Amino acid sequence: MRIEVSRDDPFGLHNLPYGVYRSPDDQRDVAPRVGVRLGEHVVDVGLLLGDDVFATGSLNAFMAQGPARWASVRGALTEALAGDLPEASVHRLAEVTLQLPFEVADYVDFYASEHHASNLGRLFRPDAPDPLTPNWKHLPIGYHGRSASIVVSGTDVVRPCGQRLPPGASAPVVGPSVRLDVEVELGFVVGTGSPLGSRIATADAGDHLFGAVLFNDWSARDIQAWEYVPLGPFLGKSFASTVSPWVVPMAALEGARVPVPGQEPVVPYLAMEEPWGLDIDLALAVNGEVVSRPPYAATYWSPAQMLAHLTVNGAPTRTGDLFASGTVSGPAAGQQGSLIEIGEGFLQDGDEVVISGEARLADGRRVGFGEAVGRVVPALPMVEGQREEEQADV
Amino acid sequence: MRIEVSRDDPFGLHNLPYGVYRSPDDQRDVAPRVGVRLGEHVVDVGLLLGDDVFATGSLNAFMAQGPARWASVRGALTEALAGDLPEASVHRLAEVTLQLPFEVADYVDFYASEHHASNLGRLFRPDAPDPLTPNWKHLPIGYHGRSASIVVSGTDVVRPCGQRLPPGASAPVVGPSVRLDVEVELGFVVGTGSPLGSRIATADAGDHLFGAVLFNDWSARDIQAWEYVPLGPFLGKSFASTVSPWVVPMAALEGARVPVPGQEPVVPYLAMEEPWGLDIDLALAVNGEVVSRPPYAATYWSPAQMLAHLTVNGAPTRTGDLFASGTVSGPAAGQQGSLIEIGEGFLQDGDEVVISGEARLADGRRVGFGEAVGRVVPALPMVEGQREEEQADV
Repeated sequence: MRIEVSRDDPFGLHNLPYGVYRSPDDQRDVAPRVGVRLGEHVVDVGLLLGDDVFATGSLNAFMAQGPARWASVRGALTEALAGDLPEASVHRLAEVTLQLPFEVADYVDFYASEHHASNLGRLFRPDAPDPLTPNWKHLPIGYHGRSASIVVSGTDVVRPCGQRLPPGASAPVVGPSVRLDVEVELGFVVGTGSPLGSRIATADAGDHLFGAVLFNDWSARDIQAWEYVPLGPFLGKSFASTVSPWVVPMAALEGARVPVPGQEPVVPYLAMEEPWGLDIDLALAVNGEVVSRPPYAATYWSPAQMLAHLTVNGAPTRTGDLFASGTVSGPAAGQQGSLIEIGEGFLQDGDEVVISGEARLADGRRVGFGEAVGRVVPALPMVEGQREEEQADV
Repeated sequence: MRIEVSRDDPFGLHNLPYGVYRSPDDQRDVAPRVGVRLGEHVVDVGLLLGDDVFATGSLNAFMAQGPARWASVRGALTEALAGDLPEASVHRLAEVTLQLPFEVADYVDFYASEHHASNLGRLFRPDAPDPLTPNWKHLPIGYHGRSASIVVSGTDVVRPCGQRLPPGASAPVVGPSVRLDVEVELGFVVGTGSPLGSRIATADAGDHLFGAVLFNDWSARDIQAWEYVPLGPFLGKSFASTVSPWVVPMAALEGARVPVPGQEPVVPYLAMEEPWGLDIDLALAVNGEVVSRPPYAATYWSPAQMLAHLTVNGAPTRTGDLFASGTVSGPAAGQQGSLIEIGEGFLQDGDEVVISGEARLADGRRVGFGEAVGRVVPALPMVEGQREEEQADV
């Protein structure tokens, strides 16, 4: 059979994102399979190419094979998918269940958007003379997060409980977060790692970066505000982070490279002749209504700079590492990537959040990322049989 | 054959820590094996008990089997090791190579010692009215670190490079850290995880905690000071953390339980009738000279409280999770767990650091942890062929 896609389809032959899926006729005791998306279909890569590396339950084994192999598989898929396909290898997208596409090794979240960092600096440190901390334009600030909390799009997000300090109070209360927020981000997946004691130069990022995903770094602002000094965010972030099911290959994004916004001079290991960002339109929708359209192209620090910084001290990277941009916010109203910046309230139980994205290629085509979706469900009671709100003012 | 150990041996039958080793006659294509230490010998657990779960290259598969199984294996070992052992199962400790004993899933570092947090607050925030931040006695402050950077005792530590702000300077320089420090810590290994959206109550810690290790959280104070506001430590810590090769079972430490120092009232999910700490004497030696003897018993937050806090927001835990206490410092001179607190300078290239520890049981016996050893080796040049010091003032 053939899959027909128009030249303008954001999931055409120029994209070919990878995911991991189960089909309805799967035997439950076999590992999920790697699929490639073409239009509204998912094609079984292992069956098509006759290679069991795509039947190991995640993308990790394939990613570990390195960039030459990624290129040859992409070439083989481009050719094969344009022709006749075995019926057994093709599924309709609507029929499959998409899984977390890769096993997450270490997860780092950066803070790479100047507009977001400035907005949050004003909110969290209103008395500081400058909303940006003195280090901000010298290095991409980042911190490690909880890998086990990363879930695939469609997973419900349980409202987290924890400590918060109500305005004017002298001691914290315990209970469900009342300032539950989202962060619209782009995530980058490391395919090929680097050993302890080595560095990844900005020019070599392409040898290591496999692809990109949409990322929602759900954030409990009240828990975060109370806990984060001096060692950074912890429980305010570690309850869930959502990734989109499709990993868009970096190769599909080459035509979307754009210069990052003008940078102040940086130290040599971060310097690049032309630091490249990506022209990706993101969108944040709550309960079906688009509330923001953050432009990833406005992000200050580039992916290659984030990776070079992460490894300048010799920290190792591994297949499956994920580093995210931090909240993407643009300079204008309607471009903020978090609800705290938008300023019209936080999430209620039952709210559904959808992050979507498309890259714009220089030739006018678009590269679809799909969606990162999550619905807020009520908090787990703090004590069995006791309501959260009773607990909240202990 | 029989292994004779005296009743006073800290690696007697009352301890039985687990490690993962290779023996000199190993075929390199087989996975390393789980061994149990008895005196100055290592016994192959898989061979002794006839169970391949101990031949999977790490402790993870065994740890995942849960607390009932840990208890039955400990019982079987206690019996078997007191009798005749097959020659093939016994190695002399000096002959084996010890590996990282478990695959690290998520790694969290706490900040649980009041004396350490006070000492560092005075150094890092000299203008603050109170050396402890307002949240400190309400929750165990923690942050996530880099799992891939955790190495087994004996691994050299490459002096990290990065950005630091020299005193009085307005812009950072790049080069090797000139304030390389250690942190003497105790680490706890999660054997049985907990699903996303659930919590581990303080009373249930024993169902999840498999054992304890010594931990050296190497720290580049200059890199840390420049980067850590507002999102916490990142490259100042992520270049290496050293664990001891022996995981001491929590069961071996039951007789070492002591009350934690008096706590101020805490919120219900952290409350315990009798929060228990552990009576463990730690020691820090640099180049063979003991420079400090931090008492773990002086630590404010207990292991069960740290685990309850980590999961109160529903964050999942997994087999192989490691959470460390943060630097252990006692109240007296000679009890500080880091060089910055001791105040007599930082590490030079070639320095060898040894952290050792022994728990004191109520019956007078001791439980040995062994050592976490690391030697500092020179930084990787920032640019090939260029000396670090030339680079440092770019």
